[in-house]
Amino acid sequence: MAKRVAIVGAGVSGLASIKCCLEEGLEPTCFERSDDLGGLWRFTEHVEEGRASLYKSVVSNSSKEMSCYSDFPFPEDYPNFVPNALFLEYLKLYANRFNLLKCIQFKTKVCSVTKRPDFAISGQWEVVTMHEGKQSSAIFDAVMVCTGFLTNPSLPLDSFPGINSFKGQYFHSRQYKHPDIFKDKQVLVVGMGNSGTDIAVEASHLAKKVFLSTTGGAWVISRVYTSGYPWDMVFMTRCQNMFRNCLPTPIMSWLLARKMNSWFNHVNYGLAPADRTQLREPVLNDELPGRIITGKVLIKPGIKEVKENSVIFHNTAKEEPIDIIVFATGYTFAFPFLDESIVKVEAGQASLYKYIIPAHLQKPTLAVIGLIKPLGSMVPTGETQARWAVQVLKGTVALPPPNVMIQEVNERKENKHNGYGLCYCKALQTDYIPYIDDLLKSINAKPNLLLMFLTDPRLALSVFFGPCSPYQFRLTGTGKWEGARQAIMMQWERTLKATKTRFVSESPSPFDYLLKLFSFLILLVAVFLIFL
Amino acid sequence: MAKRVAIVGAGVSGLASIKCCLEEGLEPTCFERSDDLGGLWRFTEHVEEGRASLYKSVVSNSSKEMSCYSDFPFPEDYPNFVPNALFLEYLKLYANRFNLLKCIQFKTKVCSVTKRPDFAISGQWEVVTMHEGKQSSAIFDAVMVCTGFLTNPSLPLDSFPGINSFKGQYFHSRQYKHPDIFKDKQVLVVGMGNSGTDIAVEASHLAKKVFLSTTGGAWVISRVYTSGYPWDMVFMTRCQNMFRNCLPTPIMSWLLARKMNSWFNHVNYGLAPADRTQLREPVLNDELPGRIITGKVLIKPGIKEVKENSVIFHNTAKEEPIDIIVFATGYTFAFPFLDESIVKVEAGQASLYKYIIPAHLQKPTLAVIGLIKPLGSMVPTGETQARWAVQVLKGTVALPPPNVMIQEVNERKENKHNGYGLCYCKALQTDYIPYIDDLLKSINAKPNLLLMFLTDPRLALSVFFGPCSPYQFRLTGTGKWEGARQAIMMQWERTLKATKTRFVSESPSPFDYLLKLFSFLILLVAVFLIFL
Repeated sequence: MAKRVAIVGAGVSGLASIKCCLEEGLEPTCFERSDDLGGLWRFTEHVEEGRASLYKSVVSNSSKEMSCYSDFPFPEDYPNFVPNALFLEYLKLYANRFNLLKCIQFKTKVCSVTKRPDFAISGQWEVVTMHEGKQSSAIFDAVMVCTGFLTNPSLPLDSFPGINSFKGQYFHSRQYKHPDIFKDKQVLVVGMGNSGTDIAVEASHLAKKVFLSTTGGAWVISRVYTSGYPWDMVFMTRCQNMFRNCLPTPIMSWLLARKMNSWFNHVNYGLAPADRTQLREPVLNDELPGRIITGKVLIKPGIKEVKENSVIFHNTAKEEPIDIIVFATGYTFAFPFLDESIVKVEAGQASLYKYIIPAHLQKPTLAVIGLIKPLGSMVPTGETQARWAVQVLKGTVALPPPNVMIQEVNERKENKHNGYGLCYCKALQTDYIPYIDDLLKSINAKPNLLLMFLTDPRLALSVFFGPCSPYQFRLTGTGKWEGARQAIMMQWERTLKATKTRFVSESPSPFDYLLKLFSFLILLVAVFLIFL
Repeated sequence: MAKRVAIVGAGVSGLASIKCCLEEGLEPTCFERSDDLGGLWRFTEHVEEGRASLYKSVVSNSSKEMSCYSDFPFPEDYPNFVPNALFLEYLKLYANRFNLLKCIQFKTKVCSVTKRPDFAISGQWEVVTMHEGKQSSAIFDAVMVCTGFLTNPSLPLDSFPGINSFKGQYFHSRQYKHPDIFKDKQVLVVGMGNSGTDIAVEASHLAKKVFLSTTGGAWVISRVYTSGYPWDMVFMTRCQNMFRNCLPTPIMSWLLARKMNSWFNHVNYGLAPADRTQLREPVLNDELPGRIITGKVLIKPGIKEVKENSVIFHNTAKEEPIDIIVFATGYTFAFPFLDESIVKVEAGQASLYKYIIPAHLQKPTLAVIGLIKPLGSMVPTGETQARWAVQVLKGTVALPPPNVMIQEVNERKENKHNGYGLCYCKALQTDYIPYIDDLLKSINAKPNLLLMFLTDPRLALSVFFGPCSPYQFRLTGTGKWEGARQAIMMQWERTLKATKTRFVSESPSPFDYLLKLFSFLILLVAVFLIFL
């Protein structure tokens, strides 16, 4: 009999999990609390409890070629960075294409997931759900938790002395939907993550004055990267990643800082990260420096004191009048339907082997999908996690003994660094390509580059030097997709098609050839001098 | 007796003209049609006849250190690129500081400016004005026309077949004030100048879809230039300008294209100029590529046909549904109060010697100030023109014979090019630094760089390698300002102060030193090899 799998949540990771279960002959039932799929990507005018909340203008931070499911490219005419409404449309296309809707029970909240009495032998779970006020319960052989980490706002008011005396309006960024509320107001946004920065920039088009307060600062990069190519298609290549991980961390941090400062000097714009040894998640924003240089957004350090109608920042005695404070202070995550003995969250980290399987369960029949923030797209990451987890649930992939898994988890908590490559702070958690490769290796789906160079050198060059797009994860082994090679070879064409909507014939200048010739000559001279 | 000078218009050039007249002992009377000073920089909710019209969000295209009056820097706390409301405030500060208001007659329209019967001898003019319905007339020894070139919208509807059948809304960009009208609409903006691009970008935050149609394309640059410095402070240096003008035009165009494409490849974004031999005015916009890459703005070629509710562009048969068309098709200029025999405007060019004095007047007692579009700021350009013109009106500066002046004008109309440096198309008209230097030379105010290198090398280095800021025009000779040197030495400090509103201590990395050392060693080796 097919194993029955309960999937909690029908967002990006939930949909991938359903598909993986179906493909591997499992029997998935997905419980979705709200009345539609899409998870965080479904914008609603009102905040819904237990679901991430978007503002109207959210656009994906990863480009379409880098943030699709690995066997389902975005439609060709989608822009390179997909606005939330189109992203939701894509998820619906995916659900329809792979017939996932039949497995989803909407408006069904998962109340509790508990071990069955015979768990040590059966590995089974009792899942209690609530649908339109009616509770029911069912037994499942496995559970995949796909609830994400953006549902519980973190609002540490204690860190802002005087906030209780503030007479203006204040709220968490989660409550934010439209910029209209900022019209002609003095606005303060606290926290410089992606949301905080987006909100400050958006407010600055309408507000009288916008302050963006950040204690730690951040590197800000634009979607429009070197020569205008999508940032992740340039940054996220196997070649560059190898190069990065071979260099000692101080050199790597210095090179990164140089690159980040080539757009604009972060010190001159008041944005430079205070701690430059650990890489926090970079902020993706195309407009921020333009808003700073025109005086529409003012960067400020941390808050010293909040008064009735004003705020005093550190390092200056000046009181700035403020009407609205937006706390873009991030999220914490939790699993209210799970007992702490199953997944324990401490200091923003869960004890999950490979970020997926609770390390100390007697039977590995519960997986958490999408509880990770790689410096890459969530979609292929969650999908690859689901592909791996399903093999574990099926028993095809064996896990190491519990003590090995617990050790892996503890080492990650200590965040020790080997001294090479970029050093990711805990919040960012992991390096995208090695993490995915590791999962793929376990399920025999990791592309063998060496072999590929011999059998299909054109493809190998694209895979190694080109963007590490998700299609690479479907070239071989379990879950191989026949369209993967073609998708990789056409990825740049699809990318350019989205913006090249007016054609200008371009004949390369003779000076381009001369420059190339000159560079070649210099190279020759250099080689000659070396071997002289 | 002091010569009486009529000044038409109290905008940027008008204010400078009043000040120059006062300083040189002339007696200026400025007639301003509206009820306040500021010209195009004064935003009003409604379009006023005969005055340029701003949209709410206009920000200066030149940085504050490059676009101030040469003896009156912007207040220190102004942002580097000044929004229109602050720019108006600055103009008011200027008017107050130099006591200019007493010379302005508001709500007074100039109806006609005609030669007196004895003009050939006296050079005098009769100026007929209208104030609150009452006409009056007065005799002036000279006239300075400071009405600008952005008052008469150019709306060539004939070029858009089918526009008469269009059932949606259409208007000239001059009518545009706020983006609210675009909410959830399909918008088409025609023309990719600064206004068209600004409007398309602004609309894209609210509209359902925005098309930006351009036949010729354009280079788009950001205010946030190399390493985040204001574009004109990097681009507009005497050193770079000399370098540019020494290189043959094809090489220069190629280098320029390389630089322009370093932010984003203009061909890939559908923006590349069709004609790359003549430099049209580059478009200044910080957001456009970010809006294109997220699919919020779609670049389109010229319009083939307008239908009832849609538009067909060239090179494609697809009909795009359109609700609103904004024609950002620019302006023509004219002088309704002057007879054509005095200033004739043909094909967008007026027959003005040095863009200022009508070449064929018997007496040079009329000057047009600010009828020029340099690739630099209008404020110091208009001001320098006024300084020069006042000397001509006074008779201190002698003009060449009429045939020489007419020849200069005709050569400009032919737009012949010497084959070196950038080749400006007529619309852009002139190279900023040589033009200003030429005017300054006539009034003995051009800084002598060679002498400066001997007497004040620090200043000379800043003047030659640093931004060609307007303070340079006040270092010496007629109109010398004592604060000029100090203003030049402090210009970078003032620039950084505006954005460095959060301080992060920055200790230069040892790798920076190593890189410098390494570059130095390479240089040594190169020198060694050359002299071997």
